[in-house]
Amino acid sequence: MKTTTDRGAATRNRILTAAGELFRRQGYAGTGVKAVLQASDVPYGSLYHFFPGGKEEVGVAVIESSGAVYRELVEQIYGAHADVAVATEEFFAGAAAVVEQTGYADACPIATLALEVASTNEPMREAAASVFDSWLEVLTVRLVEEGVAEQRARELSVELFCLIEGAFLLARTTRSVSPIHVAGAVAAESVRRALPRRRRRAQPGGART
Amino acid sequence: MKTTTDRGAATRNRILTAAGELFRRQGYAGTGVKAVLQASDVPYGSLYHFFPGGKEEVGVAVIESSGAVYRELVEQIYGAHADVAVATEEFFAGAAAVVEQTGYADACPIATLALEVASTNEPMREAAASVFDSWLEVLTVRLVEEGVAEQRARELSVELFCLIEGAFLLARTTRSVSPIHVAGAVAAESVRRALPRRRRRAQPGGART
Repeated sequence: MKTTTDRGAATRNRILTAAGELFRRQGYAGTGVKAVLQASDVPYGSLYHFFPGGKEEVGVAVIESSGAVYRELVEQIYGAHADVAVATEEFFAGAAAVVEQTGYADACPIATLALEVASTNEPMREAAASVFDSWLEVLTVRLVEEGVAEQRARELSVELFCLIEGAFLLARTTRSVSPIHVAGAVAAESVRRALPRRRRRAQPGGART
Repeated sequence: MKTTTDRGAATRNRILTAAGELFRRQGYAGTGVKAVLQASDVPYGSLYHFFPGGKEEVGVAVIESSGAVYRELVEQIYGAHADVAVATEEFFAGAAAVVEQTGYADACPIATLALEVASTNEPMREAAASVFDSWLEVLTVRLVEEGVAEQRARELSVELFCLIEGAFLLARTTRSVSPIHVAGAVAAESVRRALPRRRRRAQPGGART
Protein backbone atom coordinates (compact mmCIF):
# COMPACT_ATOMS: atom_id res chain seq x y z
CA MET A 1 0.00 0.00 0.00
CA LYS A 2 1.35 3.40 -0.92
CA THR A 3 1.83 5.93 1.84
CA THR A 4 0.72 9.54 1.50
CA THR A 5 4.36 10.52 0.95
CA ASP A 6 4.71 8.00 -1.90
CA ARG A 7 1.61 9.38 -3.54
CA GLY A 8 2.92 12.90 -3.00
CA ALA A 9 6.23 12.05 -4.63
CA ALA A 10 4.41 10.40 -7.54
CA THR A 11 2.27 13.50 -8.10
CA ARG A 12 5.30 15.76 -7.89
CA ASN A 13 7.13 13.55 -10.40
CA ARG A 14 4.14 13.56 -12.73
CA ILE A 15 4.18 17.35 -12.74
CA LEU A 16 7.94 17.43 -13.43
CA THR A 17 7.75 14.87 -16.24
CA ALA A 18 4.86 16.64 -17.95
CA ALA A 19 6.45 20.07 -17.52
CA GLY A 20 9.84 18.85 -18.75
CA GLU A 21 8.23 17.40 -21.86
CA LEU A 22 6.27 20.60 -22.55
CA PHE A 23 9.27 22.90 -21.99
CA ARG A 24 11.28 20.72 -24.36
CA ARG A 25 8.56 20.71 -27.01
CA GLN A 26 7.34 24.30 -26.88
CA GLY A 27 9.82 26.18 -24.74
CA TYR A 28 9.53 27.50 -21.20
CA ALA A 29 8.00 30.83 -22.23
CA GLY A 30 5.56 29.06 -24.52
CA THR A 31 4.25 26.79 -21.77
CA GLY A 32 1.56 28.01 -19.38
CA VAL A 33 0.75 26.55 -15.96
CA LYS A 34 -2.62 25.49 -17.38
CA ALA A 35 -0.90 23.27 -19.96
CA VAL A 36 1.23 21.67 -17.24
CA LEU A 37 -1.87 20.95 -15.16
CA GLN A 38 -3.66 19.38 -18.13
CA ALA A 39 -0.70 17.27 -19.25
CA SER A 40 0.02 15.96 -15.74
CA ASP A 41 -3.66 15.57 -14.85
CA VAL A 42 -3.13 17.28 -11.53
CA PRO A 43 -5.42 19.86 -9.89
CA TYR A 44 -4.31 23.48 -9.56
CA GLY A 45 -3.99 23.17 -5.77
CA SER A 46 -1.60 20.22 -6.02
CA LEU A 47 0.79 22.06 -8.28
CA TYR A 48 0.94 25.03 -5.91
CA HIS A 49 1.22 22.69 -2.94
CA PHE A 50 4.43 21.19 -4.34
CA PHE A 51 5.61 24.32 -6.10
CA PRO A 52 4.42 27.42 -4.23
CA GLY A 53 6.54 29.53 -6.60
CA GLY A 54 4.48 28.32 -9.56
CA LYS A 55 5.89 27.84 -13.04
CA GLU A 56 9.34 29.19 -12.21
CA GLU A 57 9.73 26.78 -9.30
CA VAL A 58 8.63 23.94 -11.57
CA GLY A 59 11.26 25.09 -14.09
CA VAL A 60 14.00 25.03 -11.46
CA ALA A 61 12.91 21.56 -10.28
CA VAL A 62 12.83 20.21 -13.86
CA ILE A 63 16.41 21.39 -14.37
CA GLU A 64 17.56 19.99 -11.02
CA SER A 65 15.93 16.60 -11.44
CA SER A 66 17.07 15.97 -15.02
CA GLY A 67 20.48 17.34 -14.06
CA ALA A 68 20.78 14.73 -11.32
CA VAL A 69 19.81 11.93 -13.72
CA TYR A 70 22.50 12.97 -16.19
CA ARG A 71 25.12 13.36 -13.46
CA GLU A 72 24.44 9.78 -12.35
CA LEU A 73 24.81 8.64 -15.95
CA VAL A 74 28.21 10.32 -16.22
CA GLU A 75 29.26 8.78 -12.88
CA GLN A 76 28.08 5.37 -14.01
CA ILE A 77 29.87 5.37 -17.37
CA TYR A 78 33.07 6.95 -16.07
CA GLY A 79 33.02 4.67 -13.02
CA ALA A 80 32.63 1.49 -15.07
CA HIS A 81 35.87 1.78 -17.02
CA ALA A 82 39.43 1.67 -15.81
CA ASP A 83 40.37 3.59 -18.94
CA VAL A 84 38.79 7.08 -18.97
CA ALA A 85 39.46 7.44 -22.70
CA VAL A 86 37.39 4.31 -23.32
CA ALA A 87 34.71 5.68 -20.98
CA THR A 88 34.69 8.87 -23.07
CA GLU A 89 34.28 6.90 -26.29
CA GLU A 90 31.42 4.95 -24.76
CA PHE A 91 29.75 8.09 -23.44
CA PHE A 92 29.68 9.75 -26.88
CA ALA A 93 28.68 6.52 -28.66
CA GLY A 94 25.84 6.03 -26.18
CA ALA A 95 24.70 9.62 -26.65
CA ALA A 96 24.69 9.20 -30.44
CA ALA A 97 22.60 6.04 -30.11
CA VAL A 98 20.02 7.75 -27.87
CA VAL A 99 19.77 10.77 -30.15
CA GLU A 100 19.24 8.54 -33.17
CA GLN A 101 16.77 6.20 -31.45
CA THR A 102 14.63 9.08 -30.23
CA GLY A 103 14.39 10.65 -33.67
CA TYR A 104 16.73 13.51 -32.71
CA ALA A 105 14.40 14.63 -29.94
CA ASP A 106 16.28 13.71 -26.77
CA ALA A 107 19.74 15.05 -26.28
CA CYS A 108 20.26 17.53 -23.47
CA PRO A 109 16.95 19.03 -22.31
CA ILE A 110 18.78 21.30 -19.90
CA ALA A 111 20.80 22.97 -22.66
CA THR A 112 17.62 23.97 -24.49
CA LEU A 113 16.08 25.43 -21.33
CA ALA A 114 19.37 27.01 -20.21
CA LEU A 115 19.81 28.91 -23.48
CA GLU A 116 16.19 30.06 -23.44
CA VAL A 117 16.32 31.46 -19.90
CA ALA A 118 20.00 32.49 -19.60
CA SER A 119 19.16 36.19 -19.81
CA THR A 120 15.59 36.20 -18.53
CA ASN A 121 15.22 33.95 -15.49
CA GLU A 122 17.88 34.13 -12.81
CA PRO A 123 16.73 31.20 -10.58
CA MET A 124 16.53 28.85 -13.57
CA ARG A 125 19.87 30.07 -14.93
CA GLU A 126 21.46 29.44 -11.54
CA ALA A 127 19.94 25.95 -11.34
CA ALA A 128 21.34 25.10 -14.77
CA ALA A 129 24.76 26.50 -13.79
CA SER A 130 24.80 24.26 -10.68
CA VAL A 131 23.82 21.26 -12.78
CA PHE A 132 26.53 21.86 -15.39
CA ASP A 133 29.04 22.43 -12.62
CA SER A 134 28.11 19.12 -10.97
CA TRP A 135 28.78 17.28 -14.25
CA LEU A 136 32.14 19.01 -14.66
CA GLU A 137 32.99 18.08 -11.07
CA VAL A 138 32.31 14.37 -11.66
CA LEU A 139 34.59 14.39 -14.71
CA THR A 140 37.30 16.43 -13.00
CA VAL A 141 37.42 14.12 -9.98
CA ARG A 142 37.64 11.06 -12.22
CA LEU A 143 40.46 12.57 -14.31
CA VAL A 144 42.39 13.60 -11.19
CA GLU A 145 42.01 10.02 -9.92
CA GLU A 146 43.78 8.93 -13.09
CA GLY A 147 46.69 11.25 -12.45
CA VAL A 148 45.71 14.36 -14.42
CA ALA A 149 46.65 17.59 -12.59
CA GLU A 150 43.67 19.44 -11.06
CA GLN A 151 43.74 22.51 -13.33
CA ARG A 152 44.28 20.43 -16.48
CA ALA A 153 41.49 18.05 -15.41
CA ARG A 154 39.08 20.95 -15.01
CA GLU A 155 39.96 22.35 -18.46
CA LEU A 156 39.62 18.94 -20.05
CA SER A 157 36.18 18.53 -18.43
CA VAL A 158 35.12 21.88 -19.90
CA GLU A 159 36.41 20.70 -23.30
CA LEU A 160 34.38 17.46 -23.11
CA PHE A 161 31.29 19.42 -22.05
CA CYS A 162 31.64 21.83 -24.99
CA LEU A 163 32.20 19.00 -27.45
CA ILE A 164 29.13 17.00 -26.42
CA GLU A 165 26.79 19.97 -26.11
CA GLY A 166 27.94 21.52 -29.38
CA ALA A 167 27.59 18.14 -31.07
CA PHE A 168 24.04 17.73 -29.73
CA LEU A 169 23.12 21.10 -31.25
CA LEU A 170 24.62 20.25 -34.63
CA ALA A 171 23.24 16.68 -34.64
CA ARG A 172 19.68 17.70 -33.78
CA THR A 173 19.71 20.55 -36.26
CA THR A 174 21.20 18.61 -39.17
CA ARG A 175 19.55 15.28 -38.27
CA SER A 176 22.82 13.41 -38.39
CA VAL A 177 24.75 11.76 -35.57
CA SER A 178 28.01 12.21 -37.45
CA PRO A 179 28.97 15.34 -35.41
CA ILE A 180 28.62 13.33 -32.19
CA HIS A 181 31.02 10.70 -33.52
CA VAL A 182 33.50 13.35 -34.68
CA ALA A 183 33.30 15.10 -31.30
CA GLY A 184 33.66 11.77 -29.49
CA ALA A 185 36.86 10.90 -31.33
CA VAL A 186 38.32 14.31 -30.50
CA ALA A 187 37.28 13.97 -26.86
CA ALA A 188 38.76 10.49 -26.41
CA GLU A 189 42.01 11.57 -28.05
CA SER A 190 42.25 14.62 -25.75
CA VAL A 191 41.72 12.44 -22.70
CA ARG A 192 44.37 9.99 -23.92
CA ARG A 193 46.85 12.82 -24.44
CA ALA A 194 46.19 14.23 -20.97
CA LEU A 195 46.78 10.98 -19.10
CA PRO A 196 50.17 10.38 -17.49
CA ARG A 197 52.27 7.96 -19.56
CA ARG A 198 51.97 4.97 -17.20
CA ARG A 199 48.16 5.20 -17.31
CA ARG A 200 48.06 5.25 -21.08
CA ARG A 201 49.49 1.73 -21.07
CA ALA A 202 46.65 0.39 -18.91
CA GLN A 203 44.74 -2.45 -20.51
CA PRO A 204 42.40 -0.82 -23.01
CA GLY A 205 38.72 -1.08 -22.18
CA GLY A 206 39.29 -3.09 -19.03
CA ALA A 207 36.53 -2.87 -16.42
CA ARG A 208 37.49 -1.23 -13.13
CA THR A 209 38.30 -3.60 -10.33
CA MET B 1 15.54 60.31 -51.41
CA LYS B 2 14.68 56.76 -50.50
CA THR B 3 13.01 54.59 -53.10
CA THR B 4 10.01 52.41 -52.32
CA THR B 5 12.30 49.40 -52.41
CA ASP B 6 14.61 50.98 -49.82
CA ARG B 7 11.66 51.68 -47.58
CA GLY B 8 10.45 48.11 -48.10
CA ALA B 9 13.81 46.68 -47.18
CA ALA B 10 13.94 48.91 -44.09
CA THR B 11 10.48 47.73 -42.97
CA ARG B 12 11.42 44.11 -43.58
CA ASN B 13 14.62 44.58 -41.57
CA ARG B 14 12.75 46.26 -38.74
CA ILE B 15 10.47 43.22 -38.51
CA LEU B 16 13.45 40.84 -38.52
CA THR B 17 15.37 42.79 -35.88
CA ALA B 18 12.36 43.04 -33.56
CA ALA B 19 11.43 39.38 -34.06
CA GLY B 20 15.01 38.20 -33.55
CA GLU B 21 15.22 40.13 -30.28
CA LEU B 22 11.87 38.76 -29.06
CA PHE B 23 12.69 35.15 -30.02
CA ARG B 24 15.99 35.49 -28.19
CA ARG B 25 14.38 36.99 -25.09
CA GLN B 26 11.23 34.91 -24.78
CA GLY B 27 11.61 32.05 -27.20
CA TYR B 28 9.93 31.41 -30.54
CA ALA B 29 6.91 29.63 -29.05
CA GLY B 30 6.50 32.38 -26.48
CA THR B 31 6.39 35.15 -29.08
CA GLY B 32 3.14 35.97 -30.86
CA VAL B 33 2.80 37.84 -34.15
CA LYS B 34 1.11 40.64 -32.21
CA ALA B 35 4.25 41.18 -30.12
CA VAL B 36 6.38 41.32 -33.29
CA LEU B 37 4.04 43.93 -34.81
CA GLN B 38 4.16 46.07 -31.67
CA ALA B 39 7.93 45.85 -31.26
CA SER B 40 8.63 46.67 -34.90
CA ASP B 41 5.88 49.29 -35.12
CA VAL B 42 4.64 47.82 -38.37
CA PRO B 43 1.00 47.28 -39.40
CA TYR B 44 -0.40 43.75 -39.70
CA GLY B 45 -0.65 44.03 -43.48
CA SER B 46 3.03 44.91 -43.87
CA LEU B 47 4.16 41.85 -41.98
CA TYR B 48 2.04 39.57 -44.14
CA HIS B 49 3.15 41.44 -47.25
CA PHE B 50 6.79 40.57 -46.56
CA PHE B 51 6.11 37.26 -44.85
CA PRO B 52 2.96 35.65 -46.27
CA GLY B 53 3.76 32.55 -44.20
CA GLY B 54 3.43 34.58 -41.00
CA LYS B 55 5.46 33.87 -37.87
CA GLU B 56 7.14 30.75 -39.23
CA GLU B 57 8.39 32.60 -42.31
CA VAL B 58 9.66 35.39 -40.05
CA GLY B 59 11.46 32.71 -37.98
CA VAL B 60 13.13 31.25 -41.08
CA ALA B 61 14.18 34.73 -42.25
CA VAL B 62 15.59 35.63 -38.82
CA ILE B 63 17.74 32.48 -38.89
CA GLU B 64 18.87 33.10 -42.47
CA SER B 65 19.74 36.74 -41.97
CA SER B 66 21.65 36.31 -38.71
CA GLY B 67 23.29 33.22 -40.18
CA ALA B 68 24.61 35.28 -43.09
CA VAL B 69 26.01 37.94 -40.72
CA TYR B 70 27.90 35.30 -38.73
CA ARG B 71 29.18 33.57 -41.86
CA GLU B 72 30.64 36.89 -43.03
CA LEU B 73 32.26 37.35 -39.64
CA VAL B 74 33.92 33.92 -39.90
CA GLU B 75 35.05 34.71 -43.46
CA GLN B 76 36.43 38.06 -42.34
CA ILE B 77 38.41 36.75 -39.37
CA TYR B 78 39.69 33.63 -41.12
CA GLY B 79 40.48 35.65 -44.24
CA ALA B 80 42.49 38.28 -42.36
CA HIS B 81 45.18 35.95 -41.02
CA ALA B 82 47.81 33.95 -42.85
CA ASP B 83 47.89 31.66 -39.82
CA VAL B 84 44.56 29.86 -39.30
CA ALA B 85 45.52 28.94 -35.73
CA VAL B 86 45.94 32.64 -34.94
CA ALA B 87 42.61 33.33 -36.66
CA THR B 88 41.03 30.69 -34.42
CA GLU B 89 42.50 32.31 -31.29
CA GLU B 90 41.20 35.69 -32.42
CA PHE B 91 37.75 34.30 -33.22
CA PHE B 92 37.31 32.82 -29.74
CA ALA B 93 38.83 35.87 -28.00
CA GLY B 94 36.48 38.15 -29.95
CA ALA B 95 33.50 35.97 -29.07
CA ALA B 96 34.44 36.06 -25.36
CA ALA B 97 34.69 39.86 -25.51
CA VAL B 98 31.26 40.23 -27.14
CA VAL B 99 29.62 37.84 -24.67
CA GLU B 100 31.12 39.74 -21.73
CA GLN B 101 30.33 43.20 -23.13
CA THR B 102 26.70 42.31 -23.76
CA GLY B 103 26.20 40.99 -20.23
CA TYR B 104 26.08 37.38 -21.44
CA ALA B 105 23.09 38.09 -23.67
CA ASP B 106 24.53 37.87 -27.18
CA ALA B 107 26.30 34.73 -28.19
CA CYS B 108 24.68 32.61 -30.88
CA PRO B 109 21.00 33.51 -31.33
CA ILE B 110 20.61 30.75 -33.90
CA ALA B 111 21.65 28.04 -31.44
CA THR B 112 18.93 29.06 -29.01
CA LEU B 113 16.28 29.05 -31.74
CA ALA B 114 17.65 25.86 -33.33
CA LEU B 115 17.42 23.88 -30.09
CA GLU B 116 13.92 25.18 -29.41
CA VAL B 117 12.53 24.23 -32.81
CA ALA B 118 14.68 21.19 -33.72
CA SER B 119 11.82 18.77 -33.14
CA THR B 120 8.83 21.01 -33.74
CA ASN B 121 9.37 23.21 -36.79
CA GLU B 122 10.82 21.61 -39.91
CA PRO B 123 11.30 24.76 -42.05
CA MET B 124 13.13 26.55 -39.23
CA ARG B 125 15.22 23.48 -38.43
CA GLU B 126 16.22 23.22 -42.10
CA ALA B 127 17.11 26.92 -42.23
CA ALA B 128 19.34 26.51 -39.15
CA ALA B 129 20.94 23.39 -40.66
CA SER B 130 21.79 25.34 -43.84
CA VAL B 131 23.24 28.18 -41.81
CA PHE B 132 25.44 25.87 -39.71
CA ASP B 133 26.53 24.07 -42.83
CA SER B 134 27.52 27.34 -44.49
CA TRP B 135 29.75 28.20 -41.51
CA LEU B 136 31.38 24.76 -41.60
CA GLU B 137 31.94 25.20 -45.33
CA VAL B 138 33.79 28.51 -44.86
CA LEU B 139 36.08 26.91 -42.28
CA THR B 140 36.61 23.75 -44.33
CA VAL B 141 37.58 25.70 -47.45
CA ARG B 142 40.03 27.84 -45.47
CA LEU B 143 41.65 24.79 -43.85
CA VAL B 144 41.96 23.00 -47.19
CA GLU B 145 43.61 26.15 -48.58
CA GLU B 146 46.21 25.73 -45.85
CA GLY B 147 46.92 22.18 -46.87
CA VAL B 148 44.63 20.17 -44.58
CA ALA B 149 43.06 17.17 -46.32
CA GLU B 150 39.36 17.63 -47.18
CA GLN B 151 37.96 15.00 -44.77
CA ARG B 152 40.20 16.12 -41.92
CA ALA B 153 39.31 19.77 -42.61
CA ARG B 154 35.62 18.97 -42.37
CA GLU B 155 36.06 17.12 -39.07
CA LEU B 156 38.16 19.93 -37.66
CA SER B 157 35.47 22.44 -38.66
CA VAL B 158 32.87 20.34 -36.81
CA GLU B 159 35.20 20.29 -33.78
CA LEU B 160 35.57 24.10 -33.80
CA PHE B 161 31.80 24.51 -34.16
CA CYS B 162 31.13 22.20 -31.20
CA LEU B 163 33.74 23.94 -29.06
CA ILE B 164 32.40 27.46 -29.65
CA GLU B 165 28.72 26.54 -29.34
CA GLY B 166 29.26 24.41 -26.24
CA ALA B 167 31.35 27.19 -24.74
CA PHE B 168 28.62 29.76 -25.43
CA LEU B 169 26.13 27.58 -23.57
CA LEU B 170 28.42 27.13 -20.56
CA ALA B 171 29.51 30.78 -20.53
CA ARG B 172 25.99 32.19 -20.68
CA THR B 173 24.73 29.78 -18.05
CA THR B 174 27.60 30.21 -15.59
CA ARG B 175 28.18 33.91 -16.38
CA SER B 176 31.85 33.39 -16.98
CA VAL B 177 33.86 33.69 -20.19
CA SER B 178 36.43 31.23 -18.90
CA PRO B 179 34.88 28.30 -20.89
CA ILE B 180 35.28 30.32 -24.12
CA HIS B 181 38.98 30.85 -23.39
CA VAL B 182 39.48 27.16 -22.53
CA ALA B 183 37.65 26.10 -25.72
CA GLY B 184 39.63 28.64 -27.77
CA ALA B 185 42.96 27.27 -26.58
CA VAL B 186 41.86 23.71 -27.46
CA ALA B 187 40.60 24.85 -30.87
CA ALA B 188 43.80 26.73 -31.79
CA GLU B 189 45.93 23.79 -30.69
CA SER B 190 43.84 21.37 -32.80
CA VAL B 191 44.22 23.62 -35.83
CA ARG B 192 47.98 23.86 -35.26
CA ARG B 193 48.25 20.09 -35.03
CA ALA B 194 46.27 19.57 -38.24
CA LEU B 195 48.36 21.91 -40.38
CA PRO B 196 51.05 20.40 -42.60
CA ARG B 197 54.52 20.92 -41.08
CA ARG B 198 55.69 23.61 -43.51
CA ARG B 199 52.64 25.73 -42.71
CA ARG B 200 53.23 25.52 -38.98
CA ARG B 201 56.45 27.45 -39.43
CA ALA B 202 54.66 30.38 -41.08
CA GLN B 203 55.22 33.67 -39.31
CA PRO B 204 52.86 33.67 -36.35
CA GLY B 205 50.06 36.19 -36.50
CA GLY B 206 51.10 37.62 -39.84
CA ALA B 207 48.36 39.23 -41.88
CA ARG B 208 47.57 37.57 -45.19
CA THR B 209 49.13 39.17 -48.21
